[in-house]
Amino acid sequence: MPRIDINCDLGEGFGIYKLGLDEQIYPLITSANIACGFHAGDPQVMRASVSLAVQHHVAIGAHPGTPDLIGFGRRGMELSAEELENALIYQMGALQAFAKAHGSRLSHVKPHGWLYNAAAEDLNLASTVVRAIQSASPDLVLFGLSGSQLIQAAKQASLPYAEEAFIDRTYQSDGTLTSRRSDQALITDPERATQQALDLVLRGRVQALNGSEVKIHADTLCVHGDNPNAVVLLTRGRNKLRKEGVEILPSGRRP
Amino acid sequence: MPRIDINCDLGEGFGIYKLGLDEQIYPLITSANIACGFHAGDPQVMRASVSLAVQHHVAIGAHPGTPDLIGFGRRGMELSAEELENALIYQMGALQAFAKAHGSRLSHVKPHGWLYNAAAEDLNLASTVVRAIQSASPDLVLFGLSGSQLIQAAKQASLPYAEEAFIDRTYQSDGTLTSRRSDQALITDPERATQQALDLVLRGRVQALNGSEVKIHADTLCVHGDNPNAVVLLTRGRNKLRKEGVEILPSGRRP
Amino acid sequence: MPRIDINCDLGEGFGIYKLGLDEQIYPLITSANIACGFHAGDPQVMRASVSLAVQHHVAIGAHPGTPDLIGFGRRGMELSAEELENALIYQMGALQAFAKAHGSRLSHVKPHGWLYNAAAEDLNLASTVVRAIQSASPDLVLFGLSGSQLIQAAKQASLPYAEEAFIDRTYQSDGTLTSRRSDQALITDPERATQQALDLVLRGRVQALNGSEVKIHADTLCVHGDNPNAVVLLTRGRNKLRKEGVEILPSGRRP
Amino acid sequence: MPRIDINCDLGEGFGIYKLGLDEQIYPLITSANIACGFHAGDPQVMRASVSLAVQHHVAIGAHPGTPDLIGFGRRGMELSAEELENALIYQMGALQAFAKAHGSRLSHVKPHGWLYNAAAEDLNLASTVVRAIQSASPDLVLFGLSGSQLIQAAKQASLPYAEEAFIDRTYQSDGTLTSRRSDQALITDPERATQQALDLVLRGRVQALNGSEVKIHADTLCVHGDNPNAVVLLTRGRNKLRKEGVEILPSGRRP
Repeated sequence: MPRIDINCDLGEGFGIYKLGLDEQIYPLITSANIACGFHAGDPQVMRASVSLAVQHHVAIGAHPGTPDLIGFGRRGMELSAEELENALIYQMGALQAFAKAHGSRLSHVKPHGWLYNAAAEDLNLASTVVRAIQSASPDLVLFGLSGSQLIQAAKQASLPYAEEAFIDRTYQSDGTLTSRRSDQALITDPERATQQALDLVLRGRVQALNGSEVKIHADTLCVHGDNPNAVVLLTRGRNKLRKEGVEILPSGRRP
Repeated sequence: MPRIDINCDLGEGFGIYKLGLDEQIYPLITSANIACGFHAGDPQVMRASVSLAVQHHVAIGAHPGTPDLIGFGRRGMELSAEELENALIYQMGALQAFAKAHGSRLSHVKPHGWLYNAAAEDLNLASTVVRAIQSASPDLVLFGLSGSQLIQAAKQASLPYAEEAFIDRTYQSDGTLTSRRSDQALITDPERATQQALDLVLRGRVQALNGSEVKIHADTLCVHGDNPNAVVLLTRGRNKLRKEGVEILPSGRRP
Repeated sequence: MPRIDINCDLGEGFGIYKLGLDEQIYPLITSANIACGFHAGDPQVMRASVSLAVQHHVAIGAHPGTPDLIGFGRRGMELSAEELENALIYQMGALQAFAKAHGSRLSHVKPHGWLYNAAAEDLNLASTVVRAIQSASPDLVLFGLSGSQLIQAAKQASLPYAEEAFIDRTYQSDGTLTSRRSDQALITDPERATQQALDLVLRGRVQALNGSEVKIHADTLCVHGDNPNAVVLLTRGRNKLRKEGVEILPSGRRP
Repeated sequence: MPRIDINCDLGEGFGIYKLGLDEQIYPLITSANIACGFHAGDPQVMRASVSLAVQHHVAIGAHPGTPDLIGFGRRGMELSAEELENALIYQMGALQAFAKAHGSRLSHVKPHGWLYNAAAEDLNLASTVVRAIQSASPDLVLFGLSGSQLIQAAKQASLPYAEEAFIDRTYQSDGTLTSRRSDQALITDPERATQQALDLVLRGRVQALNGSEVKIHADTLCVHGDNPNAVVLLTRGRNKLRKEGVEILPSGRRP
């Protein structure tokens, strides 16, 4: 029986600033990637996020980023391997403490923003991410772009991993994501997003923007919380997947 | 056989900024209170501190403060109980992750600066600190000013605690510390500090500034890392205590 | 001919976080109070705010706060007079540079959040605010709560000032604002807010929550940018005021 | 009569953290480059620095950096041109306000750390720096590495500039500075530093590490405040330069 995880980046508010429709999304996903206070999130937001995750039986994942609140962790930063490793350990530890306070624990880790993209292409950077996760806890599952250097680094270090694909992003014929700068990068049509989810889970393929088919292995599907149609898209996608006999379960430890 | 713990606030640098003589102090103490990145400390400093503590078999304690790097956590901040609790959980978790990465774990928690002083006098604030510690881990030992509301709150909640007294600070006849604003607040003469240590450990008393004797119970003795004579004072104090048959051991979990 | 200034707190976003309906509000006001990066605002937000102010011929004011981004400057902080003065000079200078870059300059200063409220009641704090403004530029106009210690301090130091009243907040019979904790604190009914504006400008009075009349002198009227009805309320209020022959002009230097 | 400016990076403390021997260096230099709160410095440190500069008749310069306190502005950051420009305007404005509060004003600007090095090699980055300075004030003098793209960009935009050379750093035969990673990068011998100062000012040349001579034009000489011999080196260098008839004066506006 085919199975898939559905994840979303959540807990991205800060102080009085709200971001995303977290309350509506938690009931629809199986894994939450929660910001840890460097690029977004603060102790209050983190605690509220963990509390929602526990309440909705959603696996709790750390979504650590660079120390760049103004840039939301999307800007490149020249961190040494040591600095990056320590920044990640710090953030995972902080979130783990909230998980523990709510009777749970971290299940997975997904690097955020620039770090996610850069480590997908750079094996050295990816290995530093993997090393940091293993320092924190060797049974955490790394979420990384399907087929990327992040997955490669996890394999090399025998760290559990989940290959991630996107329901609401278009792909190029070489299997990479269409750049966010393109106005074709996002899929907002729920029909098309649902089709992409089915293609990924049942056939291990997506249709690229140019019409060609690309092989993509997906253990977990990401939906963007700031996608205006995220709730519709998730609701419809889930129903369709279940109708096709797909089991929807976390990639990491079941909460 | 009498026993005592000797603690020091360490890991108070940040980025390129150095503070204190950490390397020289670790070999002389049994418990380290390590800053957690809010009022001082950064992920690199925290990791280096944990590494030194492990190397010297020193118990690792969190020394969390208010989010006030410019003010070094010494300025009052009107945090709600929820904000304070979350700030503490966050910081304890971050340090715990480094301890785990070095094969160890947190042993105790000592609030820093304004928080230490304010919670010593305010049972509500003290109870929030206690609640935060119990959320993080119920077997952590709280370090608080001897006889203060912090100790009271720990007793009420059945949280392990260690009553703290100071080797290098003078006391008033009512048992409070002489204010830092007074130029008689600090004891820099190693002879006098050593005598105060002995009085505290063997007789449960100190001589107040006005010559009277005050009863003070001490489970752990603090030396300030920024005291210019800290190393001399610690070396002499330890030798003298040992000569008197006092065992020097951590208050918390032995590392 | 009666005249009044209409001001609003703007530029309160940060990084990717948006707050308020700035674009819609600028055409309807005469003075903008722009956050300066400590409690809200960042260099991009500040520049965009100054640019909008210049475009809409709105007077540019600094809206400096405490260094408390997580708490949005609403939490009390124990800053020394020197620390507060320097924090204000720093923030006013930063905003002035953007004003200059757009061919304009600062016209006024309104302390934000906790500082606004605390200085309204504490003459010492108010005098520190006044001293900071005079260090930055002696012809800046201080915006402070009508009849408060801020106004008193400005008078004592011969600093130009504008007494501020609120269109969308209810008053107590002693002339103070109803606490935000009360659900009667905010006026969202445009009719009632417009009436309060007219009462303030034409009769120097408001009707308190208990029905009694209170004398309030207003040089400038504040509307909250996060009031969901701010745009409707401003549009209607302005029309009504103009119909009654009231001239709407900045309190400070005309832009 | 030959003339030269002597500058130093100062005001690099933060909160309780001290850095450099500022008090001893101010009497020996003609231009101070003062950190502006992003990579180092805080409002108190900035004010104290400006006060010292005014007292010693030293020209006040802004030394703005990236928003990277942990990394001291030495780590690369992928800022957009707009973000960089705004970060610089913000910081120059903040320092200018302190200069004004002490009856003075900014004379020059020297980018700090990574920004200084990166803009020395990248004309686009250099032009953004120049544009930011011109937005703040078109008569400010840019301090940039002699012969670098920063100087080129200033020339192109008709911004006043001062070409900078280093007394206490060694040069390569191609005129670049020896990398800090080399243990030959710093000159600590006062004799040799003094000779390099004379060679730069009187002959427009330095002897490179390999013995060859390189042409370097210097309008201003930099000494590093964290050089342990900075005070000796400055005292000796100044005396020698004066004995040779060199006038020591700021490159920018005389304070």
